[in-house]
Amino acid sequence: MSGWDPDPAELRRIREGLRDVVKETPVFSFGALSRRCGGEVSLKAESLQRTGSFKLRGTSAKLRADPDAAARGVVTGSAGNHGQALAYAARARGIPCTIFMPVEAAVSKVEAVAAFGAEVRGEGTTVDECIAAARRLAEEQGLLFVHPFDDLDVVKGQAGVGLEILAQVPEVARVVVPVGGGGLISGVAGAIKAERPEVEIVGVQAAGCASLRTSLAEGHPEAVAVPSTIADGIAVKRPGELTFALMERWLDDLAEVDDDAIAEAMVFLVERAKLVTEGAGAVAVAALTTGAVAPARAGTTVAILSGGNVDANVLAAAINRAQTGAGRRVRFFTRISDRPGVLAGLLGQVAAAGGNLLDVTHVRDGVSLHVDETGVELLVECRSVEAGRRLLEEMRAAGYPVEELNREEGR
Amino acid sequence: MSGWDPDPAELRRIREGLRDVVKETPVFSFGALSRRCGGEVSLKAESLQRTGSFKLRGTSAKLRADPDAAARGVVTGSAGNHGQALAYAARARGIPCTIFMPVEAAVSKVEAVAAFGAEVRGEGTTVDECIAAARRLAEEQGLLFVHPFDDLDVVKGQAGVGLEILAQVPEVARVVVPVGGGGLISGVAGAIKAERPEVEIVGVQAAGCASLRTSLAEGHPEAVAVPSTIADGIAVKRPGELTFALMERWLDDLAEVDDDAIAEAMVFLVERAKLVTEGAGAVAVAALTTGAVAPARAGTTVAILSGGNVDANVLAAAINRAQTGAGRRVRFFTRISDRPGVLAGLLGQVAAAGGNLLDVTHVRDGVSLHVDETGVELLVECRSVEAGRRLLEEMRAAGYPVEELNREEGR
Repeated sequence: MSGWDPDPAELRRIREGLRDVVKETPVFSFGALSRRCGGEVSLKAESLQRTGSFKLRGTSAKLRADPDAAARGVVTGSAGNHGQALAYAARARGIPCTIFMPVEAAVSKVEAVAAFGAEVRGEGTTVDECIAAARRLAEEQGLLFVHPFDDLDVVKGQAGVGLEILAQVPEVARVVVPVGGGGLISGVAGAIKAERPEVEIVGVQAAGCASLRTSLAEGHPEAVAVPSTIADGIAVKRPGELTFALMERWLDDLAEVDDDAIAEAMVFLVERAKLVTEGAGAVAVAALTTGAVAPARAGTTVAILSGGNVDANVLAAAINRAQTGAGRRVRFFTRISDRPGVLAGLLGQVAAAGGNLLDVTHVRDGVSLHVDETGVELLVECRSVEAGRRLLEEMRAAGYPVEELNREEGR
Repeated sequence: MSGWDPDPAELRRIREGLRDVVKETPVFSFGALSRRCGGEVSLKAESLQRTGSFKLRGTSAKLRADPDAAARGVVTGSAGNHGQALAYAARARGIPCTIFMPVEAAVSKVEAVAAFGAEVRGEGTTVDECIAAARRLAEEQGLLFVHPFDDLDVVKGQAGVGLEILAQVPEVARVVVPVGGGGLISGVAGAIKAERPEVEIVGVQAAGCASLRTSLAEGHPEAVAVPSTIADGIAVKRPGELTFALMERWLDDLAEVDDDAIAEAMVFLVERAKLVTEGAGAVAVAALTTGAVAPARAGTTVAILSGGNVDANVLAAAINRAQTGAGRRVRFFTRISDRPGVLAGLLGQVAAAGGNLLDVTHVRDGVSLHVDETGVELLVECRSVEAGRRLLEEMRAAGYPVEELNREEGR
């Protein structure tokens, strides 16, 4: 099954043939991350690819590899990036396109696909059901079914990311790549190992959907039961057959990162690199910030930002989550005597300690209180972790009995 | 005062001399905005410049223009981007640097400046006080004071943005530029008008600090009283003397945008361009989305994203603000009978209408209720403006007396 011997000349020809649709994405050296993890790190920003992810490379390569089969129309099942990418690629070639999406898919994703001129059909609740429906329609109507990753033409398209890295970062020593079904990393590894076998390829999965680890242990693609991660773009239950064999052959290492680390990496990229990534797009950076993957000791480590398609409200939630995790938001319960002015005094104390009050709630029921006491729950934003800790100390020093609440929650 | 005759050859020489410090920032064509405003729009992403803003161009140009004066050290007053940029430029040349910052400056900004090796001194509460303190220190210790905008060497440095636009977007017809003190737009206009006088230069200010409009009306730099805008990077009370004269000469048009439009533009850039901008950095896009500035009818309109230095929590707040403004968050009050299960029924109704419940509060006091009634206030996130409207209709159709709350608040 691992019988693909990548031919650099062929991959370059494919890449050149897609110039009108697929753009070369920029590479940014990322000083803040380099200092943080102790090695030179650059970002390959596929988040800035057309349609917001690398997926356009694979879909447009597939359409070009098999123009006769594609001529009557193309179809796939997808909840996100692959659907947008196929819709865009099909429109660019003037080919009709149908995308099956779960009936509860986010409106923004449905709209994005429809905006590229594809017909959207709701089907079931999972991507697997959508893919099955797409295969059926392809069979019935003689359309070309385009798999999101388990297809050699698709993989050869994704290889363009690897070719660009070789050209843009000649000193590359290690490439850190998000892994879902395995299409991106197989293509990148194929392109790079064929010319520079000493460059290390490291995969990163979300801990909530670490199907590749199990599969490597078993020696064949194994499905995880219930994926649960904010990195929905790589929440793929089971690696592909083709891509599993390629990953088994080429992966130098594999790491996992949890959702807190992913959210923190998304925020780190926002604040320090000024780039927006979706959860899946940030896992390579999360692996470096957490130390799950070390940067190369010599040469440059390239972290691939695979996509940027995230709803703004999901990004805002990630920011809130990361700030709570980082101790910049502190939630605590205290008691005050139930007299006029005492709450004002408490809030004054919070302000004096440098806290920005986000929420205050009276709690009179369900807690044990003296008759002349009121319970109060506060949510306070601080300038730093240290400031959050100091604020709680100052509240206690001022005589307020403080019970911190967020340490027990979530993490 | 407008006696600067830009010499393209000199500007190019200056730009070339800064290659080791200042990078060429990418230009992205922005399809979503082009479709939205009906003309070809590209983004010049100075947000991706080192230190996160265009300011590095001016400060490093100043240090290079006057190396002898700078040798003993440089100093300025700044609450943000200019301070970071001077600190970075000074470190790159091995020169000591002092930045005066307001004592209440955000810790993240102080840390950013300190991370570039500058000495940070707290001074007063305003940038004006910081600038005065910096001038005094420069005088006392023979240091070079670097003004954030009212300095011809600084303006010539910012001109690099204009040169790059000419090279990267040969078909440029109009450039839309954020205006605070006027340094960026003066430099951009100088570079572009010297070679392509037909290209239009349009300035954009925040409505909460529209000092240039008043100044143009008066014919000399006039201060606004109390700037109030989320675009703090351009909340400059008074244009410079030099830059005012240059703007008077070169500006083809001037527009204003309010904070809601700025927040919406920041979110639009996050969702559709995958780029993070600070408030000031998004005003050119806000001017195009609101129609305050029209795109050129022929050729490309370039919107300059001047900077990306925004705290993640400020970005999250902008997202929340924009979503409320866009009707995707709906806050309403209703009454239910005070029996077990009725609240569950209400929440089921919200879910059935496609709403995502963010907050629910019982309101028993301060509103008139029947004895067997409870007031409930809900905050619900919907998929779109239309979905928000439909949700309220469905709640009313189901018999809940709904009072919408957020229409009265804020906007």
